[in-house]
Amino acid sequence: MLVALAGGVGAARLLAGMVRVVDPTEITVVVNTGDDMSLHGLHVSPDIDTVVYTLAGLSNPETGWGLDGERWTVMDELERLGGETWFRLGDRDLATHLYRTQRLAQGAPLSQVTAELASARGLALRVLPVTDDPLRTRLTLAETAPGFAAGSEVDFQDYFVRLHHSVAVAGVRFEGASTARPAPGVLEAIGGADVIVACPSNPVVSLGPVLAVPGVRDLLEARRDRVVAVSPIVAGAALKGPADRLLVELGHEASAAGVARLHAPWAGTIVIDEQDAALAPAIDAAGVRAVVAPTVMRSPEAAADLSRVVLDAAG
Amino acid sequence: MLVALAGGVGAARLLAGMVRVVDPTEITVVVNTGDDMSLHGLHVSPDIDTVVYTLAGLSNPETGWGLDGERWTVMDELERLGGETWFRLGDRDLATHLYRTQRLAQGAPLSQVTAELASARGLALRVLPVTDDPLRTRLTLAETAPGFAAGSEVDFQDYFVRLHHSVAVAGVRFEGASTARPAPGVLEAIGGADVIVACPSNPVVSLGPVLAVPGVRDLLEARRDRVVAVSPIVAGAALKGPADRLLVELGHEASAAGVARLHAPWAGTIVIDEQDAALAPAIDAAGVRAVVAPTVMRSPEAAADLSRVVLDAAG
Repeated sequence: MLVALAGGVGAARLLAGMVRVVDPTEITVVVNTGDDMSLHGLHVSPDIDTVVYTLAGLSNPETGWGLDGERWTVMDELERLGGETWFRLGDRDLATHLYRTQRLAQGAPLSQVTAELASARGLALRVLPVTDDPLRTRLTLAETAPGFAAGSEVDFQDYFVRLHHSVAVAGVRFEGASTARPAPGVLEAIGGADVIVACPSNPVVSLGPVLAVPGVRDLLEARRDRVVAVSPIVAGAALKGPADRLLVELGHEASAAGVARLHAPWAGTIVIDEQDAALAPAIDAAGVRAVVAPTVMRSPEAAADLSRVVLDAAG
Repeated sequence: MLVALAGGVGAARLLAGMVRVVDPTEITVVVNTGDDMSLHGLHVSPDIDTVVYTLAGLSNPETGWGLDGERWTVMDELERLGGETWFRLGDRDLATHLYRTQRLAQGAPLSQVTAELASARGLALRVLPVTDDPLRTRLTLAETAPGFAAGSEVDFQDYFVRLHHSVAVAGVRFEGASTARPAPGVLEAIGGADVIVACPSNPVVSLGPVLAVPGVRDLLEARRDRVVAVSPIVAGAALKGPADRLLVELGHEASAAGVARLHAPWAGTIVIDEQDAALAPAIDAAGVRAVVAPTVMRSPEAAADLSRVVLDAAG
């Protein structure tokens, strides 16, 4: 049994390789919901959708989000009406949000709705939101940004999409985390897993919310020897997104070693890129076993190769 | 100044003629919101949209609802996901609901949002929901229907769309009516109007909710001599929808005379169709002045002719 702790695009890419080397029915993906948002009254779960769309072979390979060959009739019309279109929801993508919102309104928990959507997309692996309870990543801006004063606190998508994550951040917190309960099956899956993979997702805003749900981090610490992290930082830079800047802004080091030190309490092993081989001794000195391998996933085949490295590292 | 009390399709057709004979800036339409619903988390206002789409020349002439040349990408995808698709929302139509829901979530009242949407559609007349407060038409079923037991109470759209209004009704109530306040401008418009037109809308479930908002009916009664109703019943049958059956089921007569008796306390005049000319004496006897004219609007020109009759009747 394998458990993957997942954010969005980086996680989805690794998982697209993992399902080639591990029976998907043996995989449980625990996904970040701190990025979730309410937009136009709809419940949008960007990381869950990125994982599901990618594994269903439906994702847009260029953007990393949304659906391939998407149409934009609704957004185009909404733009004509003067509505908010900074967060672009494609026509087919919208059906996912309509479905999710309707089922949640009917009382189904997010984990149940996510299972229904994954099943409707033909997925055999289990996709679990880390919690069914509200969990929202909130960032305090360190400087002024268009429409926001320095020091103001914004939702994740305001930072990530509306502000194109091109603003310095002074702090991050996970609203709702202290009272959130792990979704049914999350702790059981982590507790019973042979391998726990921390996907190459943003350590602060993608894995951070997963770890912030009470019980998850404690259990990972107890199972530290089973945890293999994959560094999302290669040669000091994030392959995608603002992970490198966020790490520095929050007092960490934007390097595979910085990630290793951050994850050290609960990850026994970290896979770092060949370009970062020189960091291996420092990582080992921090008490984390460094495994060096190609980690840049340019294709599903490369993701499958990386998945084999992860599995080997787990023993 | 002209005020029109409006439901959906019949009202929209008359108004499409009225704007040809009256300066649209002199017209205020007070629209039923008892049909409003929350679907997929979206606030849908069917009667407001029918009026706005029709007056903007965007409505589907075949269905009477929705937009002409509409696309169905979202609904088709939602169907693939196993979602609820009994209430069909077209792609461009969805933009309206996203806009409305987002603005309501931001705290804008429905009247403000409706004004924005009407303006975005290029309308010069004023479209007012009868109230900004929740108002929901609820029907008690007199018999068993697919998915509903006899005696159960259902939302209007469950009755109208899901059950194709092919089930007998034992009662109607307007949830929220007792505490609903008229939207800003509603009473002022009715109080200051030279002509008040009760459009040929369903007397029970379209005009009923408008009258049920405290203050509206009292003011109409006080201005009874200014009110001209147009009968939606011609030769004993509703031109569209279940008005004829509903009237009978609720103890009224399915005829222009039945409508006249129902509206008698607040409508001094009623325009009835030529086919119903023989009913004129009975209507006059009920204290309502009957004006006989062609009322079946087969074209905007016919609607304009009927509008002239209404204006003449008002003096």
